[in-house]
Amino acid sequence: MSEHSVRIGIAGLGRLGRRHAENLATRVPGAELVAACSPVEAELQWAGTALGIAHRYRDYGDLLRHPGLDAVFLVTPTTLHPAQIMQALDAGKHVFCEKPLSLDLADCERVQRAAAARPELQVLVGFVRRFDASYRDAQARIAQGSIGRPFMVRAQTCDRIDPTGAFVAFAATSGGIFLDCSVHDIDLARWLLGTPAGAPRARRVYAVGTNAVYEKLRDYDDVDNGLAICEFDGGQIACFYASRTMPHGHDTWTEVTGTAGRLTIGRDTHVNQVELSDERGVRFEVVQDFYARFADAFVAEAAAFIEAVRGRTRLAVTLADATEATRIGQALARARREHRIVELG
Amino acid sequence: MSEHSVRIGIAGLGRLGRRHAENLATRVPGAELVAACSPVEAELQWAGTALGIAHRYRDYGDLLRHPGLDAVFLVTPTTLHPAQIMQALDAGKHVFCEKPLSLDLADCERVQRAAAARPELQVLVGFVRRFDASYRDAQARIAQGSIGRPFMVRAQTCDRIDPTGAFVAFAATSGGIFLDCSVHDIDLARWLLGTPAGAPRARRVYAVGTNAVYEKLRDYDDVDNGLAICEFDGGQIACFYASRTMPHGHDTWTEVTGTAGRLTIGRDTHVNQVELSDERGVRFEVVQDFYARFADAFVAEAAAFIEAVRGRTRLAVTLADATEATRIGQALARARREHRIVELG
Amino acid sequence: MSEHSVRIGIAGLGRLGRRHAENLATRVPGAELVAACSPVEAELQWAGTALGIAHRYRDYGDLLRHPGLDAVFLVTPTTLHPAQIMQALDAGKHVFCEKPLSLDLADCERVQRAAAARPELQVLVGFVRRFDASYRDAQARIAQGSIGRPFMVRAQTCDRIDPTGAFVAFAATSGGIFLDCSVHDIDLARWLLGTPAGAPRARRVYAVGTNAVYEKLRDYDDVDNGLAICEFDGGQIACFYASRTMPHGHDTWTEVTGTAGRLTIGRDTHVNQVELSDERGVRFEVVQDFYARFADAFVAEAAAFIEAVRGRTRLAVTLADATEATRIGQALARARREHRIVELG
Amino acid sequence: MSEHSVRIGIAGLGRLGRRHAENLATRVPGAELVAACSPVEAELQWAGTALGIAHRYRDYGDLLRHPGLDAVFLVTPTTLHPAQIMQALDAGKHVFCEKPLSLDLADCERVQRAAAARPELQVLVGFVRRFDASYRDAQARIAQGSIGRPFMVRAQTCDRIDPTGAFVAFAATSGGIFLDCSVHDIDLARWLLGTPAGAPRARRVYAVGTNAVYEKLRDYDDVDNGLAICEFDGGQIACFYASRTMPHGHDTWTEVTGTAGRLTIGRDTHVNQVELSDERGVRFEVVQDFYARFADAFVAEAAAFIEAVRGRTRLAVTLADATEATRIGQALARARREHRIVELG
Repeated sequence: MSEHSVRIGIAGLGRLGRRHAENLATRVPGAELVAACSPVEAELQWAGTALGIAHRYRDYGDLLRHPGLDAVFLVTPTTLHPAQIMQALDAGKHVFCEKPLSLDLADCERVQRAAAARPELQVLVGFVRRFDASYRDAQARIAQGSIGRPFMVRAQTCDRIDPTGAFVAFAATSGGIFLDCSVHDIDLARWLLGTPAGAPRARRVYAVGTNAVYEKLRDYDDVDNGLAICEFDGGQIACFYASRTMPHGHDTWTEVTGTAGRLTIGRDTHVNQVELSDERGVRFEVVQDFYARFADAFVAEAAAFIEAVRGRTRLAVTLADATEATRIGQALARARREHRIVELG
Repeated sequence: MSEHSVRIGIAGLGRLGRRHAENLATRVPGAELVAACSPVEAELQWAGTALGIAHRYRDYGDLLRHPGLDAVFLVTPTTLHPAQIMQALDAGKHVFCEKPLSLDLADCERVQRAAAARPELQVLVGFVRRFDASYRDAQARIAQGSIGRPFMVRAQTCDRIDPTGAFVAFAATSGGIFLDCSVHDIDLARWLLGTPAGAPRARRVYAVGTNAVYEKLRDYDDVDNGLAICEFDGGQIACFYASRTMPHGHDTWTEVTGTAGRLTIGRDTHVNQVELSDERGVRFEVVQDFYARFADAFVAEAAAFIEAVRGRTRLAVTLADATEATRIGQALARARREHRIVELG
Repeated sequence: MSEHSVRIGIAGLGRLGRRHAENLATRVPGAELVAACSPVEAELQWAGTALGIAHRYRDYGDLLRHPGLDAVFLVTPTTLHPAQIMQALDAGKHVFCEKPLSLDLADCERVQRAAAARPELQVLVGFVRRFDASYRDAQARIAQGSIGRPFMVRAQTCDRIDPTGAFVAFAATSGGIFLDCSVHDIDLARWLLGTPAGAPRARRVYAVGTNAVYEKLRDYDDVDNGLAICEFDGGQIACFYASRTMPHGHDTWTEVTGTAGRLTIGRDTHVNQVELSDERGVRFEVVQDFYARFADAFVAEAAAFIEAVRGRTRLAVTLADATEATRIGQALARARREHRIVELG
Repeated sequence: MSEHSVRIGIAGLGRLGRRHAENLATRVPGAELVAACSPVEAELQWAGTALGIAHRYRDYGDLLRHPGLDAVFLVTPTTLHPAQIMQALDAGKHVFCEKPLSLDLADCERVQRAAAARPELQVLVGFVRRFDASYRDAQARIAQGSIGRPFMVRAQTCDRIDPTGAFVAFAATSGGIFLDCSVHDIDLARWLLGTPAGAPRARRVYAVGTNAVYEKLRDYDDVDNGLAICEFDGGQIACFYASRTMPHGHDTWTEVTGTAGRLTIGRDTHVNQVELSDERGVRFEVVQDFYARFADAFVAEAAAFIEAVRGRTRLAVTLADATEATRIGQALARARREHRIVELG
């Protein structure tokens, strides 16, 4: 292919950052991972050894100044997202940023304005499920009317229990279970209940939670299981469930109910095609973490970003979607903490 | 069997009443259906023709005076339940009464007091799922600790859509979707989250709803789809969904999540053991109404009542359970109508 | 119901005999179980105590002479079937007989002739799956053309492993695994591949077997797992599998493949509606024995027999079907023992 | 990665050849697709345009002489396999060859001898399922004893019906349905029933077939549905089913039954994670062709080949396995054509 590759620099090489880096280096057509940035020396070494990336920076500003760079991938802590995105836009770079955009609504809006001022640059927030083949199939069926008028979404994002509780420390900056996990479900609900005229507008939410296993989360005013209800302007309703304590694996699914049919996406995602029958009955294993479930979607997401940068397609997920997901996620968090209904203007 | 049969009179021979009557006449060991009562002449004729019941009454008082009667089965409109139960108790009869006990909390409590004054008489409100083999199996597993400590119940009671909308008229007296449908789920949640020390106490509820298909329900301030959250004293949470508009059949299931496992009861209840693979994929049909799903449980319920009347077993469902289900169901209905959180004392 | 009940005497009160007796005593409309016959004193006592049957005989001839008897149920050893059926016919009684009719083809034909001479008497051999709701649904769909032209049946009848090996002794008289188990599948294949013009005629069979667990079966030239292929006249093919060593439960299913669709009946028959998710994955238990799978079909079978005796319906299973099942079953057994293809005239 | 890539030339760019080429060009680490060979001009052009392969040959000898070539991928007609493999070995090239190795047993053995003379060269026949994650998981579980002693394999390879019948012409050279389709199942049965001491030896086979849809296949003495039984030396048994007429999709699965458990691999392989519930019931779609089912396995297969060429791993599939699969496949074909049992020496 004679066309110029999109030269990418990645910032953040934690667990998910490394996955993105591997995808960009080996599985995304048209992408060229030319530089990496991390404050952690070991991560930079990995980028050199495992992926052969010659240009490695400790400083994000240096990454942006890398010659010929077209775009950045931000897999950094959420608190850094807004400033890093705006710096990249200033430097004329396209931006992919992991979700959530920010926990601060004002920051979300600032980013939106900055991006609007640079319409020639692509900015994508990583709502990866929008790029999953099953969710896309479901959305297409809904658009074709195969379930009539959709009026309810029930969705959950549930992680396998981690007996070490290592993730608890993360609660300090995660924004709580709804902003960390349900933000995906919120975005999906808006998308799957949407019409060509746009997504429905959330009007009123309520949420509850409990600490079934990780008592330590109370120190951060967070819970390990959360349940929420959301009402939309057009009368649609949604129910979100998020958990850190699934006994059997990563259990993330979505159900869209319409007046003429119902679609269920991702229930009981088998780890593979093997089923065992023995004296305990018939059983199968399920995927163990979100990456196992969405590995292909992460590649498709990166590929879609590259295609948009190349001007071949338009991105369907906008910054306004990311802002709205934060706005609703914050409302859920507040409703749970304050035991009250939160009205959304 | 030399033992005396339990002589039963049934009041109410509508759709469900006829099912009870058939069960009592032919499938419940130790039951003898000796008399029937209905204000509808055609129903009484059916009792004579189809079941061979010689003694047929238009008046409930006459039924109670039928010589040698041991017990009554009330499958009458909910508004009649309290008075009919108390009349039966006064007449020294054991009572089976279809759910809900009453839509009026004061009436529930009056019945409780009346029954408490006659401890030798059995009174059972028809929470039929407590007698379903699958729910009993689930409850036994939970009691054995197979899912650790249960902390969440999600449950739904969803009827197949009825294009004629015939049921809409019923909304005038049903108490709304939560008292009509979710009352089962409420009772199950209390039972399945309970410990030997008793059921957890509901503390706070919220609910929403929408009219996806039956706009007419607005005239009764009712909805065709309702979604509710309930918090219990011990930190347990529950989510209830009820619907009149399922496209595919009667879809009633319950999920109990614990710290070490999860039980799912009744998801995708196949209508039979047949699966069809054709150019549309692989598919199976699901049960079409609640009776198809719970036919055996209705028989088991009646059999348990008979056994209790004979003094062989104690009934696990109490009038206090029925009162509590009404109390919570009313709170859900109020929360939905008034768009507010309802605190339960 | 003013109509006269069908007065039945049952012969044979072993495990399955007791099930039939209970059904006739309590679950089959129009049946009246008036007498029982068994050479085993304890079985007769059970009939008196558990079912209240006053008339109990050690001698089959005495049973036939019971005043007013209309029909007999034979749940006796297979070797006794032909003589007992013919005695009953001589005595003018309708006959239900458990499968197989006989292991001896000449005996089968003798019974057929005797029955043909008494066309006013009903004779039913217990191919119970013909009365199962799922198989009936499947057959109706095939007849309606929903899978195009059916051309293949794959079927299996597989028992749960019995660590005590108690059943091994039964091998002496069972006729081997194909005549004991596959005889059901043979009958189903003929029925489900049949057309209004009749069932296809088996032309050629081959079979193999192995002793995976029960080495003792070699003493009876029997196997604990058998696999067979059958070709029919119209080009249809069938594959039968029978086993005594299923690790997980009773696993009996049938698949019918046509030119436009495929029906699968009974795969993974859940023991109930409960599913457990825990650290081992997601699992359900399956039915543990044939009676658990076909309990309702046994009642339907008895009810159909009663209806036929009363002249209300015609039985769809004929003695010719039973003879043919034995003929094919014998061919399978011979093919396996002699390692050769057996041609059926 | 500083290590030298494996330079590959591919011969054959039909439907499957193009898939292999794409994988080698973009998805297989360490592989460098440097040259392509095809007698079809359009295919060569595609290699240039779509994959950017500069070196394109019409002649296989020229491909082998391509400077610096390490290995060839043969996705050519089966009749060419033996000569092309031997030519490649003579030229000192590693060889990947699509299955089956050859339809001629003598040719298979010739290839084996030629390869044995060049032990430094890797030769892999494409039994792709051995590289599928689910089959590998199943094999590992069996090796760990999780189903006790495996004694039976039932397997099927069934293509979706093709209303155009385009594949019929292929019957002239396919070797018939068993050598084309069941050859995979044969290889799997030997592998999954094998022990560290080796695979069991097939002793005796029988097979039948029918033409359910494609009458034209009779001209090639082939069938569109075939059913076979195979007995092995250790008493193990296998049943193979192959079809060209599945109404619903590509339906390929394998079941391994042992004395303590059973594994089922690939039943009802969903096309994605979407399930639709509507007035017809609940349904999902299944994969439509073998490539959709085994896409990842094709990549893993190529990757394993590359790893072996680099000396990092040993290939588990040997030429002897390929020869044995042909030997058994031929026996099945003969058994079906001649209506007789075929003994394997």
